Amino acid sequence: MRCAQAGDTVLLINERDRRRFIRTLEPGRQLETHRGLLKHDDLIGQPIGSEVRTHIGFSYYLLSATTDDLISNAIRKTQIIFPKDAGYIIMKLGICPGSRVIETGTGSGGLCMALATIVGDEGHVYSYELREGIQDIARQNLKRTGLLQRVTLKPGDAHAGFDETEVDAVFLDMLTPYEVLTQARAALRGGGVLGSIVPTTNQVVELLKNLGVSRGYAFVEVEELILRAYKPISARLRPDDQMVGHTGYLVFARAVTIRPGIDVNTETSGDEGPSDEAEV
Amino acid sequence: MRCAQAGDTVLLINERDRRRFIRTLEPGRQLETHRGLLKHDDLIGQPIGSEVRTHIGFSYYLLSATTDDLISNAIRKTQIIFPKDAGYIIMKLGICPGSRVIETGTGSGGLCMALATIVGDEGHVYSYELREGIQDIARQNLKRTGLLQRVTLKPGDAHAGFDETEVDAVFLDMLTPYEVLTQARAALRGGGVLGSIVPTTNQVVELLKNLGVSRGYAFVEVEELILRAYKPISARLRPDDQMVGHTGYLVFARAVTIRPGIDVNTETSGDEGPSDEAEV
Amino acid sequence: MRCAQAGDTVLLINERDRRRFIRTLEPGRQLETHRGLLKHDDLIGQPIGSEVRTHIGFSYYLLSATTDDLISNAIRKTQIIFPKDAGYIIMKLGICPGSRVIETGTGSGGLCMALATIVGDEGHVYSYELREGIQDIARQNLKRTGLLQRVTLKPGDAHAGFDETEVDAVFLDMLTPYEVLTQARAALRGGGVLGSIVPTTNQVVELLKNLGVSRGYAFVEVEELILRAYKPISARLRPDDQMVGHTGYLVFARAVTIRPGIDVNTETSGDEGPSDEAEV
Amino acid sequence: MRCAQAGDTVLLINERDRRRFIRTLEPGRQLETHRGLLKHDDLIGQPIGSEVRTHIGFSYYLLSATTDDLISNAIRKTQIIFPKDAGYIIMKLGICPGSRVIETGTGSGGLCMALATIVGDEGHVYSYELREGIQDIARQNLKRTGLLQRVTLKPGDAHAGFDETEVDAVFLDMLTPYEVLTQARAALRGGGVLGSIVPTTNQVVELLKNLGVSRGYAFVEVEELILRAYKPISARLRPDDQMVGHTGYLVFARAVTIRPGIDVNTETSGDEGPSDEAEV
Repeated sequence: MRCAQAGDTVLLINERDRRRFIRTLEPGRQLETHRGLLKHDDLIGQPIGSEVRTHIGFSYYLLSATTDDLISNAIRKTQIIFPKDAGYIIMKLGICPGSRVIETGTGSGGLCMALATIVGDEGHVYSYELREGIQDIARQNLKRTGLLQRVTLKPGDAHAGFDETEVDAVFLDMLTPYEVLTQARAALRGGGVLGSIVPTTNQVVELLKNLGVSRGYAFVEVEELILRAYKPISARLRPDDQMVGHTGYLVFARAVTIRPGIDVNTETSGDEGPSDEAEV
Repeated sequence: MRCAQAGDTVLLINERDRRRFIRTLEPGRQLETHRGLLKHDDLIGQPIGSEVRTHIGFSYYLLSATTDDLISNAIRKTQIIFPKDAGYIIMKLGICPGSRVIETGTGSGGLCMALATIVGDEGHVYSYELREGIQDIARQNLKRTGLLQRVTLKPGDAHAGFDETEVDAVFLDMLTPYEVLTQARAALRGGGVLGSIVPTTNQVVELLKNLGVSRGYAFVEVEELILRAYKPISARLRPDDQMVGHTGYLVFARAVTIRPGIDVNTETSGDEGPSDEAEV
Repeated sequence: MRCAQAGDTVLLINERDRRRFIRTLEPGRQLETHRGLLKHDDLIGQPIGSEVRTHIGFSYYLLSATTDDLISNAIRKTQIIFPKDAGYIIMKLGICPGSRVIETGTGSGGLCMALATIVGDEGHVYSYELREGIQDIARQNLKRTGLLQRVTLKPGDAHAGFDETEVDAVFLDMLTPYEVLTQARAALRGGGVLGSIVPTTNQVVELLKNLGVSRGYAFVEVEELILRAYKPISARLRPDDQMVGHTGYLVFARAVTIRPGIDVNTETSGDEGPSDEAEV
Repeated sequence: MRCAQAGDTVLLINERDRRRFIRTLEPGRQLETHRGLLKHDDLIGQPIGSEVRTHIGFSYYLLSATTDDLISNAIRKTQIIFPKDAGYIIMKLGICPGSRVIETGTGSGGLCMALATIVGDEGHVYSYELREGIQDIARQNLKRTGLLQRVTLKPGDAHAGFDETEVDAVFLDMLTPYEVLTQARAALRGGGVLGSIVPTTNQVVELLKNLGVSRGYAFVEVEELILRAYKPISARLRPDDQMVGHTGYLVFARAVTIRPGIDVNTETSGDEGPSDEAEV
């Protein structure tokens, strides 16, 4: 049975109102909830998964935080990348323990936490952000979740290029990702993956115009993920009345090296109805 | 610049027809494509990301395989869990380097490869499957992608219980997941996450009936992810005409320990419109 | 050029805040908007489609109301059937000028207005509602849109059966539509169409259990329509951030007469993958 | 009890394989199905809704055709507007008995049949099509469904303008609808509705650029409808595996008359988050 220890990042949720708190346990500190106080010293030593009570008797569950929790409960000053998108981005970028990845901008650090979680201690995330104040929020989120040592937060503009080379993936979450594709390609290793999330179709069009093989990219894909939540009630199962209608369009491409004299045209490939069949 | 080496798992794709092959490079072997032969010896030493030619001159890109590629190009005898679902499952189950996770059934090993990729060498996947022949396919997929040592493939029926305890997550991809919730809870550590994917609403209803706090589960969620792909053509951006309409409903819950004498009721929580607000 | 006349049902919209009012023009009356008064006498004689000004100078467009407007701007005390669903229901039920149709319950009269619009003066809508007060709202909506003479509002419980026979369509918008299928079949002409909208999957399951050929129904379909709105901005085209996630599942079936001794089984037809091909 | 008569347009469906035929009954004719012959003379006099048998004993249901059937079973040489879109278009355009409406292009006549059904004998549809051969298909569809007298099929190019004025609605289903907005406005009565369906986001963007108040349009909306079908099996309710991912984006606007000297800007209205509230 695992018990909470000082230094653990834990999640506390009230089951009735679903209020939730993420905290790194430190002796001497306490958490003020809407329904009373919880002393960290009282939490330390309690089994993870068990109920704990505030000083006025209200119940919270003491849980470990999943990646979904880290993102969903992040301190945020900007629009954050949702867990549904983060999970898919990780699959498409091929992020795994040991990966080296660049992202820009950092924003509130939502995707950054997901990437840092998966790359592990052997990998690293280089996160660029133009707006200085914003990155402080991300630093706070990374610190309290114990992930800061896996991330280098770099103030800076992607237009000026990236300091790293031979990285496994570059993810662009910025207003004009189509302006920094050359910079991204210079940072990527051959076969590495470029990803981007943009809210408008106009930005997707600009990306598609600029993601040709002549710039070192192939196998361009455009997708979006729609998450539909259901009311978890056995006698009346149904989707929620309201849902998030849009987070962003996801664009992915592979960094390739073209040999001189070869005639290829990425853009038209979609027209020809690629069979997309896997051969085994 | 990274070059392909013997033992590497590589992806070869033709850009025009999108035919793709995943292979672990072995000196002396060769790959027969629809457009000619590629000798592994000729591939070894080539830069990842570059073009290679078959003996009759057709061009393939030599790429490293992402998790998405591993799943999408798996040998399959059964319905496979799609990358969109796999990525989200990893976020929701909190899978990270070092995680210990049980899944059942193994099927063709699609999710198993994604889990094994993320848990790294410090973690482990215990994968149960009732149908013997099926697991051979998964073994083949895991072997050729170099992930087999991170997985224990166990023939067996979840109804008989799991051998492991204190695992971080249990994922149920089977006909009657609602029949093995007690067994799953016995394997989970406190605060661990249960996940399941089921195709029908009837199965979701059965899960919801059985996921109460009295069985050691709380914070039940039901969701589905819909992936919409677009034709990647800048002058005519539009969704594909046909899409996958349904893969499955995703159900998640947290393993909790309830203290005697506490009155809780998970099922009704959805009615009360939990605020779901994060406190920072 | 068509000008507004006394007795016309018109729509007034402010373009900036999209505030909208539906009114039947009557000499001597006036409309109080948030931005000043509009006298009906001043509106009468103005060209439809033109701008009109309140006494303090604010601009409204004077428009004729579409069926979408009638529904979207109805006075409502209950959940209303959305235009997206109403339009499809009309297609599936085969409603056209001259149709005779039963609906229950009336609710606030949203679908009732759409049906009454389409059946014209030769058709008729029989609308049943158990809750008396509710039907008053519908009466008010029908009256101000000039549709009341095409509708018979009947207080009453569908369980007791319908007074009409040989109607072209019956639409059930009630908690337990599966309890009144025999009553609906008794009212329907052969080949007529039954429709229902229900919010939960549990209700769909109950309907499917009871819509067999033995009860006089065949060709059962279950569908849902999802409406996604976009921000109408040319430089930043994108879906709205929030959307309606669910209105209801639509269930349709045909009233058929089975000859004695014929063995049919509607329920299993879905398994067999009907080809659904049209022959010309 | 209604029985089939000569001149009726009927639908014949086999329940097992869902093969379906739409025919106008004429004495002396016969229908060749994949499972035997049905003589029109034998169908005439049979109750609508009943089963009929081919000469080799196979069973078909004799039904009346709904608008959905007319569209779904149309002879087609071109992509057709789906019933889900047709129903919503009718709601948004305000089509009702007596409406006069222009559409271009005719295509195979799918939407044309839906419009002609709803406008009734007092209304009329003016349908323009550039490609001559195509319109023959539409004529055939309209003829066999008894709707031809409500439609004027006009060969011709919308760029040259429409012959009609003061119509209630104009619907543009063509490659470059944004090139004929002035022509459409000239045909529309004040307060009339313009609609268009286009497959790509690029076309939506062009429409938005050209639908300003300076051209006589306001209240622009962009939407899309997604239809999800479920397997109608009570014990295993679930969405179909495959679905139509995209038919088209729907764009609607109102024909308005602006008074000189008024400063309005349609395009920015979306930015300001119109409240869109109905006042009662």
